[in-house]
Amino acid sequence: MASAATIARNCRKVMCIGRNYADHVKELNNTKPKQPFFFLKPPSSILLPGAGPVLRPKGVNMHFEIELGLVMGKTVRDLHPEDTQGALDAIDGYLLAIDMTARNVQEEAKVRGLPWSIAKGFDTFLPISNLIAKSRIPDPQNAHLWLSVNNEIKQSDSTGLMLFRIPRQLSDISKVMTLEAGDIILTGTPKGVGPVRTGDVMKAGLQVNGKDIEEANMEVP
Amino acid sequence: MASAATIARNCRKVMCIGRNYADHVKELNNTKPKQPFFFLKPPSSILLPGAGPVLRPKGVNMHFEIELGLVMGKTVRDLHPEDTQGALDAIDGYLLAIDMTARNVQEEAKVRGLPWSIAKGFDTFLPISNLIAKSRIPDPQNAHLWLSVNNEIKQSDSTGLMLFRIPRQLSDISKVMTLEAGDIILTGTPKGVGPVRTGDVMKAGLQVNGKDIEEANMEVP
Ligand SMILES: [Mg+2]
Ligand SMILES: [Mg+2]
Ligand SMILES: [Mg+2]
Repeated sequence: MASAATIARNCRKVMCIGRNYADHVKELNNTKPKQPFFFLKPPSSILLPGAGPVLRPKGVNMHFEIELGLVMGKTVRDLHPEDTQGALDAIDGYLLAIDMTARNVQEEAKVRGLPWSIAKGFDTFLPISNLIAKSRIPDPQNAHLWLSVNNEIKQSDSTGLMLFRIPRQLSDISKVMTLEAGDIILTGTPKGVGPVRTGDVMKAGLQVNGKDIEEANMEVP
Repeated sequence: MASAATIARNCRKVMCIGRNYADHVKELNNTKPKQPFFFLKPPSSILLPGAGPVLRPKGVNMHFEIELGLVMGKTVRDLHPEDTQGALDAIDGYLLAIDMTARNVQEEAKVRGLPWSIAKGFDTFLPISNLIAKSRIPDPQNAHLWLSVNNEIKQSDSTGLMLFRIPRQLSDISKVMTLEAGDIILTGTPKGVGPVRTGDVMKAGLQVNGKDIEEANMEVP
């Protein structure tokens, strides 16, 4: 099975969906999107397991967003939004990931109509878990994500709450840009996002049918 | 010398500066930035020489933006903005590139405070020339870019007009994210951007001291 280092090395694009859980849309005072929207993070932002800490740039209000990640296994173009089997077949495996966000930089970008690439793209802004074998998550819309800061649970929700499900996400992305083996897709974050300060420790994990998936366990200083 | 195909294969991030020529800022009714801002294009958007045409997605007002591209030759972090020698040393070579933009999608993203990744990231939205050896452009701030549509010149300006010069660009980017060998930087477009329609032919080129640089010649249907 591919190590996280191999995943990072093979990754040429990280595509993330925004506002994909209704309660998270509300907590940031955003409007519920009529269609999914996406942004890129650079592969250089990946932080391997154990390679922490996450670095907080000066003057940045740094937020965590726990997300289920997909590692693509093949080239995908123009996937049909209801092609659930096609979507599953294109996925090589899963990982847990924290979409770290410079929230104040992002808020300013939004107001000024500027790109999000800087707010999302700092080095270390994408801690990932080890690869989770596909067989470990029989239904990616039925997994439970959680994240704690200093052992206090901040996010804990089911991937069943996604507004746009994975086939629709892969469809919308692949109508714009070809998905390639090694690409990573982040599927959005549930409610509960918030700040981390230098010295805080984030832990995160994933459960399927009430059982912890060990490979997903993350501890990020 | 690396072929364009090798450059595309080795590229893991394409970072582009916005609003870097004063007259182009004006033509799009934007405000002149106090500091450079950047956005990512996915490597999957690269269109190799001769591999055209550029594909116009349905309902998209597709604009050309001719730009000088830098191909990075080494890892760069925290470059000093006045380290001209350090910047030049980090560059492996140049290319000419067209930053194709879904202008209506971008305008809507700006108004709604959404990311630019889709507007900039469609397949074929980054036609590149062959690699231009570093020795062919002794001073990257003293080269002349041009682009024509159906043999009518649309853009023709000197890289000397950049608001933020290359060392400052590499400095600002590398303070946010590590630049890696193979990364491509697009340095902004001069005035004259405009639409292309299916069937139009774009040609572009680069002159140094009044002489055409042959490797830079592009013809993109
Ligand atoms: Mg996110
Ligand atoms: Mg963006
Ligand atoms: Mg541009």
